[in-house]
Amino acid sequence: MPDKSQSSPRLLDSMNLPSDVRKLDLSQLERLAGELREEIISVVSQTGGHLAPSLGVVELTLALMSVFDFDHDKLVWDVGHQAYAWKLLTGRKDDFHTLRTKDGVSGFPKIAESSYDHFGVGHSSTSISAALGMAVARDLAGKKNEVISIIGDGSMTAGLAFEGLNQAGHIDKKMLVILNDNEMSISKNVGAMSHFMSRNLSSRWVRRFKKDVETILNAVPAIGEEMLNYARRSEHSLKSFFTPGMLFEAFQFNYMGPVDGHDIKALQRAFRLYQDLDEPVLLHVLTKKGKGYAPAESNPTFFHGVGRFEPETGQAKKAAKINTVPTYTEVFGNTLCDLAEQDDRIMAITAAMPEGTGTACFEKKFPDRFIDVGICEQHAVTFAAGLATQGYRPCVAIYSTFMQRAYDQIVHDVCLQNLPVVFCLDRGGIVGEDGPTHHGVFDLSFMRHIPNMTVLVPSSEAELADCMATALKHDGPVAIRYPRGAGYGVPLKEKPEPFAIGTGEILVQGEGVAVVAVGSRTYPAVEAVKELAAETGKQATVFNARCVKPLPEEQLLELVNTHDSLLLLEENALQGGFSSAVLEFLSDSGALGKCKVKRLGIPDKWIEHGSQIELREQLGLNKSGIKEAVQELFDKK
Amino acid sequence: MPDKSQSSPRLLDSMNLPSDVRKLDLSQLERLAGELREEIISVVSQTGGHLAPSLGVVELTLALMSVFDFDHDKLVWDVGHQAYAWKLLTGRKDDFHTLRTKDGVSGFPKIAESSYDHFGVGHSSTSISAALGMAVARDLAGKKNEVISIIGDGSMTAGLAFEGLNQAGHIDKKMLVILNDNEMSISKNVGAMSHFMSRNLSSRWVRRFKKDVETILNAVPAIGEEMLNYARRSEHSLKSFFTPGMLFEAFQFNYMGPVDGHDIKALQRAFRLYQDLDEPVLLHVLTKKGKGYAPAESNPTFFHGVGRFEPETGQAKKAAKINTVPTYTEVFGNTLCDLAEQDDRIMAITAAMPEGTGTACFEKKFPDRFIDVGICEQHAVTFAAGLATQGYRPCVAIYSTFMQRAYDQIVHDVCLQNLPVVFCLDRGGIVGEDGPTHHGVFDLSFMRHIPNMTVLVPSSEAELADCMATALKHDGPVAIRYPRGAGYGVPLKEKPEPFAIGTGEILVQGEGVAVVAVGSRTYPAVEAVKELAAETGKQATVFNARCVKPLPEEQLLELVNTHDSLLLLEENALQGGFSSAVLEFLSDSGALGKCKVKRLGIPDKWIEHGSQIELREQLGLNKSGIKEAVQELFDKK
Repeated sequence: MPDKSQSSPRLLDSMNLPSDVRKLDLSQLERLAGELREEIISVVSQTGGHLAPSLGVVELTLALMSVFDFDHDKLVWDVGHQAYAWKLLTGRKDDFHTLRTKDGVSGFPKIAESSYDHFGVGHSSTSISAALGMAVARDLAGKKNEVISIIGDGSMTAGLAFEGLNQAGHIDKKMLVILNDNEMSISKNVGAMSHFMSRNLSSRWVRRFKKDVETILNAVPAIGEEMLNYARRSEHSLKSFFTPGMLFEAFQFNYMGPVDGHDIKALQRAFRLYQDLDEPVLLHVLTKKGKGYAPAESNPTFFHGVGRFEPETGQAKKAAKINTVPTYTEVFGNTLCDLAEQDDRIMAITAAMPEGTGTACFEKKFPDRFIDVGICEQHAVTFAAGLATQGYRPCVAIYSTFMQRAYDQIVHDVCLQNLPVVFCLDRGGIVGEDGPTHHGVFDLSFMRHIPNMTVLVPSSEAELADCMATALKHDGPVAIRYPRGAGYGVPLKEKPEPFAIGTGEILVQGEGVAVVAVGSRTYPAVEAVKELAAETGKQATVFNARCVKPLPEEQLLELVNTHDSLLLLEENALQGGFSSAVLEFLSDSGALGKCKVKRLGIPDKWIEHGSQIELREQLGLNKSGIKEAVQELFDKK
Repeated sequence: MPDKSQSSPRLLDSMNLPSDVRKLDLSQLERLAGELREEIISVVSQTGGHLAPSLGVVELTLALMSVFDFDHDKLVWDVGHQAYAWKLLTGRKDDFHTLRTKDGVSGFPKIAESSYDHFGVGHSSTSISAALGMAVARDLAGKKNEVISIIGDGSMTAGLAFEGLNQAGHIDKKMLVILNDNEMSISKNVGAMSHFMSRNLSSRWVRRFKKDVETILNAVPAIGEEMLNYARRSEHSLKSFFTPGMLFEAFQFNYMGPVDGHDIKALQRAFRLYQDLDEPVLLHVLTKKGKGYAPAESNPTFFHGVGRFEPETGQAKKAAKINTVPTYTEVFGNTLCDLAEQDDRIMAITAAMPEGTGTACFEKKFPDRFIDVGICEQHAVTFAAGLATQGYRPCVAIYSTFMQRAYDQIVHDVCLQNLPVVFCLDRGGIVGEDGPTHHGVFDLSFMRHIPNMTVLVPSSEAELADCMATALKHDGPVAIRYPRGAGYGVPLKEKPEPFAIGTGEILVQGEGVAVVAVGSRTYPAVEAVKELAAETGKQATVFNARCVKPLPEEQLLELVNTHDSLLLLEENALQGGFSSAVLEFLSDSGALGKCKVKRLGIPDKWIEHGSQIELREQLGLNKSGIKEAVQELFDKK
């Protein structure tokens, strides 16, 4: 037997499109799976990315390509962070090393990037709805292509997935929903549903029913009926019969599985079985996150979305110099714990992201006051509203981009009732490599027009702590919005100090031009104006506005009256954001026209992926961009 | 036996609070049910309101009050349009005749209105999440009160309800979820779930399983086990055993029911059974919408939300003079049908509101191209995105206030991918008697900051048709926002004419002051400036801006250069809305300060219920308010 491992060229090198994969036999597919894993680990160790999810679906990707024809058939990945093998085999192999880098391959499927990416994704639980749309379109057009969606067990807990499932079962279109069950989602899975799907299930209902069935089985040992045989085979089979198939069949899906998601042959068999049916099918596939890479298998949460690491060991690569500045996320988590020591009304709520939002430490310290609702942002907010009616102070920690999912609940359940819920929006502004699906650049625009809402935007990690103390003293809804990554290095106070809502502070007193800033762009503005002053002798003012709603009105009027021009600065959409609020205020108070106004923020277009540093440079939102804008205002004077 | 019907005073007259109801015996409760129905029919025939839902839960309300203690126990009504009997028995009897009128009793539960309204509602499917928050709060505080939510079968289809159910089952708190199953929701119910709950269910799974069980039953006629007895009782029982209990038990709820929701004694028995349990219970209650009022029982869709009617006959009261002006909704529905005749890419999607959105006629004409997704706004939008990827032109017709629920899907699934989905937002602006939960005053603010989005706001019913033709020619997402009620009377063109996006039109050429308006306030502005001109000789300009995004930039600059002041006019929040967009544009183009600007729109507070006429007067958004604002600008010149 030839030793393939040493000398033979990689199969991967000759694979360009799904049609190439269709030509491979089983042993070749299995070999290709190994090569894909190596390639993914190698690239992601350099670029960072969603390693564990992508390693988990290598065989699934190959099995799909070997059976279906994706020049016609449509596939919708849910979330899409598991699609790296898909990308490698759909014409993007040569560019794959640019994964998640500026102008490189995106970390998510994207219509504009490849004709094989049939639907762009990034947020969870959209795949069934989108695929159903494609299935309805297919039937209307009299076409015959297959429509497939792949959704994780975590994504399945979101209401949107249920809405899609519910309608798909109702209108009875041929489509395949693959439930990629890795018992994980990003962190541990929550919800009755996950328990229900768990392979160690022992719910009340099943226990009771099992007892009934066993009684029958014992009483009639000789009945040879199919169901009885099935039930008798093992306890596991019995559970499978009633769960989770039961649930999906209840939604009028034909349930198939569970199938080992790393067994290409078994997957192919299931797909071919599906092909002969003419109805909605849910195929339950069991996979292991991080499969085939020991460090990721043993720590899938860390390797869900990972930075650069040593591929041999799985050790994270340390930054050249150790950064002693804490991240906003860390400061948030620690401050929340500190405040909660003093105030037992404080509760923390997260939507499947205890680690990402920094609330994991809170969970350890105050398990009774911590709730992870799963990927259910809508429920998180309405649930928090319920808590708030009973005197609690829920802090809902959800990334800015995901909070978009709970807009109506913020409006209707919290703000209309003026309930003291604190919305803690991490990852506000440019997030970097995850790109347009994850930038949190709309929050100021979708939050500030809601009556009763207060919107605070700290300029530093220290001020984040102060904002939290301020919010918890306020008797109404408050949103605090802070960026991804390390703070600016402003030392934390011993104890966070609340400030008066609707006030900001002058950080640099200058003349002529005033930079009126919120959030993470404030201290870069300080650096910019100092540098400019050193170079030109012209010292601009920097005002940390801190409050987007209500605005620091008196101070703004004072600035207008004492300066020739204002630079309004934010890392939010210029449409409807902070600068828009300032213009409204100046207009309504008759102060417009008293001084020039320039606005610097996110323009009205989608910001692609890239590092935060690169994107801020591109947008003129770094020190030198701000400096240039201030210089222009001085020049125009 | 005394004839109670003739002379005895109404029991209702001596009922003020739930504690009074607790003292009544069964026959008194039954009598009170009749009196409540009479009172509700009598008042709603005068005020309009949600008659059929409220009539359906009279016995349920009484049974709850007779068993629980609502001075401590908490109740969350889902949507809340069924809470009229609740309102009558919680201190609001004497004011109930003011239902839905300005400064009168609200049509929905409202914390600020009564301490017995434990959670304010209006949008669907929030009740389980809110109640769960209350249950968690109760246990944390070591209290013993009950927490109950009442949710309709229609509301149960929304993802948020599933999210709540899923977590409630998981964390296993004592709470009672009452499923008020009237097989209706607002219109007919949709989705596999509703089919599943239907009493005429015969899903694939049940059919198969029933066969298996019957085989066992036939083979072992003598087994006396509980389950077998249960299953044997009747086919109906068998179905009940597996459905819908199966589903809810899968979510780890203890399922009870179905119970006749008009049988007070049966309800009381079920409630008492629940009281002894210490776990989440779902009680399935069967009710009839419109119960006890023949016209409403036979036409529950019409009587879901009804205007004034003759109580004896159920006939709607005709307006004094017959209004020949069609509603925006009618124009939308008819135009959509006309356009769809010519363009078979057009599809119509609604979320449980075919009648309300005017798409019912489309459904009749083009059943294959019409989809009612149920109360699933998120799914509606992502589903539409899926259709759009395949070359279709989905028109998603959802009220403005409910579109808030799909904000993230609009951002992420439609606009990011620049898909040609048309969002048809009926009930934009002030809606009237339904109040703050239903006013559509935020849509311009939450739509216009999304890149790739086009936002059109017709000034008349004729322009609505033009906007639709324009949107369907555009190769990207478009939102069209139009008000509730009759058009202005602008004659419809024979065929709608597309206009150039980013252009408006001068309706009145004047000088000095220009009213720059969008939407329903445009023609009242025309009337206002004409009246003012007749009185003062000063003729202001009226510009119908029509496009909120992109703005008619050139024309706006022309107006700024040729007038002393602008009145920016809209029926949307002043925060982030149309006038805000104009300020941004004027600022960015250096035109700010060239003329005075005044903004007229919805201020930053919640607008309560009342008629559209009253509320517009209150807000200065009617002809005389606009006239006054124009006059002021002339005076300031």
